[in-house]
Amino acid sequence: MIKAGIVGGTGYTGVELLRILSAHPEVTLTAITSRSEAGLRVDALFPSLRGRVDLCFVTPDEAALEKCDVVFFATPNGIAMRQAAALVAAGVKVIDLAADFRIQDIAEWEKWYKMTHAAPELVAEAVYGLPEINREQIRHARVLANPGCYPTAVQLGFLPLIKAGIIELDHLIADAKSGVSGAGKKAETGNLYSEVTDSFKAYGVAGHRHLPEIRQGLVRMAKGMDVGLTFVPHLTPMVRGIHATLYARLKRDVDLQTLFETRYRDEYFVDVLPAGSHPETRSVRASNLCRIAVHRPQDGDTVVILSVIDNLVKGAAGQAVQNMNIMFGKAENLGLTMAPVSP
Amino acid sequence: MIKAGIVGGTGYTGVELLRILSAHPEVTLTAITSRSEAGLRVDALFPSLRGRVDLCFVTPDEAALEKCDVVFFATPNGIAMRQAAALVAAGVKVIDLAADFRIQDIAEWEKWYKMTHAAPELVAEAVYGLPEINREQIRHARVLANPGCYPTAVQLGFLPLIKAGIIELDHLIADAKSGVSGAGKKAETGNLYSEVTDSFKAYGVAGHRHLPEIRQGLVRMAKGMDVGLTFVPHLTPMVRGIHATLYARLKRDVDLQTLFETRYRDEYFVDVLPAGSHPETRSVRASNLCRIAVHRPQDGDTVVILSVIDNLVKGAAGQAVQNMNIMFGKAENLGLTMAPVSP
Amino acid sequence: MIKAGIVGGTGYTGVELLRILSAHPEVTLTAITSRSEAGLRVDALFPSLRGRVDLCFVTPDEAALEKCDVVFFATPNGIAMRQAAALVAAGVKVIDLAADFRIQDIAEWEKWYKMTHAAPELVAEAVYGLPEINREQIRHARVLANPGCYPTAVQLGFLPLIKAGIIELDHLIADAKSGVSGAGKKAETGNLYSEVTDSFKAYGVAGHRHLPEIRQGLVRMAKGMDVGLTFVPHLTPMVRGIHATLYARLKRDVDLQTLFETRYRDEYFVDVLPAGSHPETRSVRASNLCRIAVHRPQDGDTVVILSVIDNLVKGAAGQAVQNMNIMFGKAENLGLTMAPVSP
Amino acid sequence: MIKAGIVGGTGYTGVELLRILSAHPEVTLTAITSRSEAGLRVDALFPSLRGRVDLCFVTPDEAALEKCDVVFFATPNGIAMRQAAALVAAGVKVIDLAADFRIQDIAEWEKWYKMTHAAPELVAEAVYGLPEINREQIRHARVLANPGCYPTAVQLGFLPLIKAGIIELDHLIADAKSGVSGAGKKAETGNLYSEVTDSFKAYGVAGHRHLPEIRQGLVRMAKGMDVGLTFVPHLTPMVRGIHATLYARLKRDVDLQTLFETRYRDEYFVDVLPAGSHPETRSVRASNLCRIAVHRPQDGDTVVILSVIDNLVKGAAGQAVQNMNIMFGKAENLGLTMAPVSP
Repeated sequence: MIKAGIVGGTGYTGVELLRILSAHPEVTLTAITSRSEAGLRVDALFPSLRGRVDLCFVTPDEAALEKCDVVFFATPNGIAMRQAAALVAAGVKVIDLAADFRIQDIAEWEKWYKMTHAAPELVAEAVYGLPEINREQIRHARVLANPGCYPTAVQLGFLPLIKAGIIELDHLIADAKSGVSGAGKKAETGNLYSEVTDSFKAYGVAGHRHLPEIRQGLVRMAKGMDVGLTFVPHLTPMVRGIHATLYARLKRDVDLQTLFETRYRDEYFVDVLPAGSHPETRSVRASNLCRIAVHRPQDGDTVVILSVIDNLVKGAAGQAVQNMNIMFGKAENLGLTMAPVSP
Repeated sequence: MIKAGIVGGTGYTGVELLRILSAHPEVTLTAITSRSEAGLRVDALFPSLRGRVDLCFVTPDEAALEKCDVVFFATPNGIAMRQAAALVAAGVKVIDLAADFRIQDIAEWEKWYKMTHAAPELVAEAVYGLPEINREQIRHARVLANPGCYPTAVQLGFLPLIKAGIIELDHLIADAKSGVSGAGKKAETGNLYSEVTDSFKAYGVAGHRHLPEIRQGLVRMAKGMDVGLTFVPHLTPMVRGIHATLYARLKRDVDLQTLFETRYRDEYFVDVLPAGSHPETRSVRASNLCRIAVHRPQDGDTVVILSVIDNLVKGAAGQAVQNMNIMFGKAENLGLTMAPVSP
Repeated sequence: MIKAGIVGGTGYTGVELLRILSAHPEVTLTAITSRSEAGLRVDALFPSLRGRVDLCFVTPDEAALEKCDVVFFATPNGIAMRQAAALVAAGVKVIDLAADFRIQDIAEWEKWYKMTHAAPELVAEAVYGLPEINREQIRHARVLANPGCYPTAVQLGFLPLIKAGIIELDHLIADAKSGVSGAGKKAETGNLYSEVTDSFKAYGVAGHRHLPEIRQGLVRMAKGMDVGLTFVPHLTPMVRGIHATLYARLKRDVDLQTLFETRYRDEYFVDVLPAGSHPETRSVRASNLCRIAVHRPQDGDTVVILSVIDNLVKGAAGQAVQNMNIMFGKAENLGLTMAPVSP
Repeated sequence: MIKAGIVGGTGYTGVELLRILSAHPEVTLTAITSRSEAGLRVDALFPSLRGRVDLCFVTPDEAALEKCDVVFFATPNGIAMRQAAALVAAGVKVIDLAADFRIQDIAEWEKWYKMTHAAPELVAEAVYGLPEINREQIRHARVLANPGCYPTAVQLGFLPLIKAGIIELDHLIADAKSGVSGAGKKAETGNLYSEVTDSFKAYGVAGHRHLPEIRQGLVRMAKGMDVGLTFVPHLTPMVRGIHATLYARLKRDVDLQTLFETRYRDEYFVDVLPAGSHPETRSVRASNLCRIAVHRPQDGDTVVILSVIDNLVKGAAGQAVQNMNIMFGKAENLGLTMAPVSP
């Protein structure tokens, strides 16, 4: 059994990690920390977990995290970078669901996250945990940077096109729509029910933190070539789900459907839909799947990719457990085979 | 392995049965019938099941249902009553998720369902499948009447009070609220998104078909005494979930919290919340649980019970599988331990 | 023209007041105060009002409210009671949309609102602003207590029954459901989109502040006789709307439909639906209407009343303007004839 | 007073027309036709209109539409083209809210709408009713083609850019999101609450009927130059609202904010937001407004336009009334000054 600890865990990423880990056949949850909620039963905060998680939140001191095999950070940005080094030194694997280890260029990270990085040396060794791209490196990672939700949906959508070298890289467009749970459980006016229901809006058009993360990933796929990307995130009135609509210009003719089916044939969590399909976010709700459809409207030179995930699962907690499985030599889908909940 | 067939199965009860049965460790899905969709892959109708259900819908003739161990009817009312006898004769257990076998009084059934009953003799032997009340009879049932969604939530809420003989039975009130999936997947104007979202209404105040079913259950609990019940169902803009708010007058003082906790102590699927709680329907979403809270406002003589279930699971497909487990001697929660999905 | 000022006004009651008053043909908006937002343009906080409200929020000092003809308090409880006396002394009419002047029994008020009342003498003279009951007194009011949202829907529903003396008063039940805007625009975790959407729950079963307000109103209708009331509010995932389902026992036979139609025949804002109807909250959305339907299930002795309003309009800002019209001798529906928005 | 008739009018466009026209100070509603609902009171179908519309649906024969001054067709495609000629001959102005007269190229229309056009000569004289572009021609129109909802939002967004000649026209992208009311009130499974709520999807990527309409409009703006457009519509779980996110490449530097503000300075119904804004669809809910924001992310050569309307108002019924006002020499905003409803 893998002894797992969670730091943070009072937000939506946390409760989703608990939902998944509490049913994982090879994991024992040993501790979950929260300074603000220390002493409170986990299932008092999350009644959906009554009967499943028999733990209380504890302070970091009480948690004895260094005795865990793996520690998940379901914390705000800037926490894991301060605590990871000690855990790694104690032989504990660290999986950060926040952004601390996602961007290799420290200056770029500091610009977007507006703080000084506390552990640049760990960034250098950290592995970016998108298993469909990085599986081999993940096996041996000590510090794993779990990807952001938008970056997961966007990168999986662009990957086959860029790898095949068939699109122009200078003007890619990612028009992405997210459910509200992506904004977390913070008590902010902008996330109130009456503010976001029955309405739709873009946000962060001038620049969203996931832009440099996506661009870094696309540049790697393009073996270092420049990539021009316009990324526009939108808030849509639903709880879970990301729908990325991706646009690129084709440089030459190719059977796009076959390209995608071939690339993802062996990927358990990526499902390429039949030609002409339109994936719905609910078709992956509460599951670790990414479903993708490929379109070429009017047989023109613009390719349109539709890519959907559940932002809390494949975009956060599920992918973190997928990474854990790889890091500990388990079957990659262990504990992650739950069917989507629809309707 | 239990060989299971499904008749109908193109609606929400059907897809939920498929979600649960496809992950059940002791079930093999052998056939699913639909006259209208025969030939279509199940996962073409329900993309959420891609990779999980590798069946096509077949006509009843092709289905060879008589070779199954159990057949679930996820059909409109009036279908199972015509097909069950032949299956029972062939040694197949029948679980009807519709209302054909729920009401013992044939005349009463015919009044509410506005058709002539085709199999009164099967009604007489049919067992009403609320395991928390009827477990022993369910073990030996050949024809099982799976309870309605409202009746499940309401009966589990009133049960301890009536069994203890502490409430007046002449003026019970059940004010119940249901998500829209309870109305099924029929293409009717009244169930359109733009008709029911961001709005709330009562319906069927003059008389709803679940009224006689609930009353029959309450009378049984009261060992045949008369029960007066006002039942008002409401439609609330959410997909899944029933919230029943129950009102009764206390005849004498009693520790209500202890009464409920004691009654349900050994029930895996019934969770009595701590005193003062307000269960949310999302706390049972996509699970087979019923959560109940007990209140006595201002220490008066009115008791208020709050009872929530997921209408598609404990109120339909999940309870059907719970009944199947009992009928086949399996652990009652086999394949039904999935955690609620929240948020 | 009536010179109107608003104190508070950064919440949902405030923006709704602004929507209505900015289109009112006999009102000039002169000032809107907010300590926290002073200096900000109103339409920067509420983009829906761009082009309609050309004001900035100002501090109370800058507002010169004593020069207004009427001041609306769209503030939290406990503010108006401290500022009303000076305004009244200056000849300004005060309309409080909060609860400061609603309950005549000061001790009762202080128990429920957990503060000491700052102006008991104003409570004594304040008029409870439910025009369908209190129209004559409202004409001459200097301090008007605008009713709560639940109390409006519940009192209008019970009124004809109690006035006619045909129901037992000892065990009335009001099972009420509210949209989320009723909780206001406070940044609280419990009101986040991901917390309340696609879910339903009761709250405050042990005791809600609107209980004493409703009970006071019902006792007045009953000319001082005791009234026993169980009031259970619920939160339903929609923005606007209250649906009250009311239960009472009939003491004698009467034509309920005629009773209600007669009582409300001359009320512009109360619409008694045809027998057998089920009002939807959306049928009054964004309007000042209350729609009511009367039921007597199975011709028994339990009467069921369904009463719907928009909590922000008839339950708050619209009723406040209706009261203002009466207080200033205008047509009662002036500026309030907007049609409901549906779908 | 303008005598107005409505053909069709049992759908969402119809009820919205009725809401607006019944409050229009210069309009008398004389007849509303519906073969299927003839004899039914309008307010029985639309309870929100109780007290406002005192008409019954009548058959076309009973309607005497030729005595109207104007007839609105709120019908499915293919109806107006068969009835308009007789009305025009009788001197009645025709405003078609469907697509019969929108596309000048009859062959193109027949390809997309899959029927033979019954009145090509009326298409030739019909005026495309986007007042912000075509105001002068609208004044004298006898047959007015009211624009589609997507085309309204997209054309108003691209207009200043194309008129100024500053973007490349060969690869425009319109990523548009619509509320569900755009799909109408047809009883189709795909529009059920449980199918579309809490989910997001694209549709019609291979080709949507609004594509040729938008392209025709953009080509006109570009004075006949070729325009390459990729148009991807999406369904978002809300009732009303369209959000168009538009992407184009800049050919040269220009002050985009000033360009838009100048172009729309005198347009009552188009509101250019301050630089850096993100319009929400709710900020125009139930109003005839279009709000637009202009972005140039990272000062690159990609311009991003955000354009929102209420699809039932500026995208249908409201724009139809705006056109009527122009055609009859009334103030363009008469009866259309209602404020958006938010929240």
